[in-house]
Amino acid sequence: MFSYPRAMRRLINELSKLPSIGEKSATRLAYHLVTAHNADSLNLAEAIKLAKTETILCRECFFLSANTLCEICSDHTRDATQICVVEKPADVVAIERSGGYRGRYHVLHGLWSPLRGISPGEIKIDELITRIVGDNQSNSSGTISVNEVVLATSTTVEGDATALYIANAVSKYGIKVSRIAQGIPKGGDVEYADDLTLSHAIEGRKNF
Amino acid sequence: MFSYPRAMRRLINELSKLPSIGEKSATRLAYHLVTAHNADSLNLAEAIKLAKTETILCRECFFLSANTLCEICSDHTRDATQICVVEKPADVVAIERSGGYRGRYHVLHGLWSPLRGISPGEIKIDELITRIVGDNQSNSSGTISVNEVVLATSTTVEGDATALYIANAVSKYGIKVSRIAQGIPKGGDVEYADDLTLSHAIEGRKNF
Repeated sequence: MFSYPRAMRRLINELSKLPSIGEKSATRLAYHLVTAHNADSLNLAEAIKLAKTETILCRECFFLSANTLCEICSDHTRDATQICVVEKPADVVAIERSGGYRGRYHVLHGLWSPLRGISPGEIKIDELITRIVGDNQSNSSGTISVNEVVLATSTTVEGDATALYIANAVSKYGIKVSRIAQGIPKGGDVEYADDLTLSHAIEGRKNF
Repeated sequence: MFSYPRAMRRLINELSKLPSIGEKSATRLAYHLVTAHNADSLNLAEAIKLAKTETILCRECFFLSANTLCEICSDHTRDATQICVVEKPADVVAIERSGGYRGRYHVLHGLWSPLRGISPGEIKIDELITRIVGDNQSNSSGTISVNEVVLATSTTVEGDATALYIANAVSKYGIKVSRIAQGIPKGGDVEYADDLTLSHAIEGRKNF
């Protein structure tokens, strides 16, 4: 069947492998890349290569980093007794932008999802436990320096399940475990809030 | 402000330049590329480079091609007296897939769009005229071998305007100019067709 030249077909094929890029979008992107100014396309190719070779996961928190330890883990002014657990690097950036947190992070790189076949062992939960209790779990003499684990996974079924799983795993070490608040978002209308959000908002009410 | 490592930021920036990819999508794609298997990301980088260097526009019809003349323009079994004018390469692939056309093509690489600041001079209309009348417009002794120009631009305002512009430019050379039919698409319900489509469908009715 008639189609594009071979190099173009290969590019469409590679672009289709990206998340949420179907064949039509891939074709549109490939057309853009092939007809764009030379420098633009080659810059993108170079940026992919560079990002891939220069970016690693932080040894401690698994955020994206250029060095063994990321910017936050190597910042000694940050509170090392608090660990905020998130699903993905973008969540770290969002929380940092909010400015409401001065502790450290732990990026799971996924959520526990039986539907998508992702077990707790496939996300960085073991690494979180190791980080909290140190290498010698039997030693109660003080390798534990973490006071609080803030579970900041999304308030979806998978995010809640992952949070519950981690809370169970961590609580036996006598560490405080908290979950980000659920409620009406800023600017939200009570009338249009769904039942579950509303019941959470009332349940989690604070003294005024 | 806190953000991703430098190489990751550069990748997000380059990805944001792609059409219909905003900053959020670019970040998600960059995260995928950085954490994906090594080979996948480097394959994409390589595919971009290859497609960019190996793919050119056909000298005759401006479809994407690996050689000076594309597959269709170098196929002597195709009817060279018919030229089907389309906006972009994907339209050629779609018409070829339909199997309803055996002539040649002309890819405009855009549509006349005052709103987006694209004038007729910026799309391949002059090249179409040159192709039809040859280099010597004053010579009436037979360099014209094209009998029909099929205007297959989309039936949008811009597509219609471009078709009208080309029809005016071409008709003075005494060549038949046709426009793809407008009507109810296959499987379409008359009740739900919009007024303009319906009036075109009735106006363009054929003997049964």
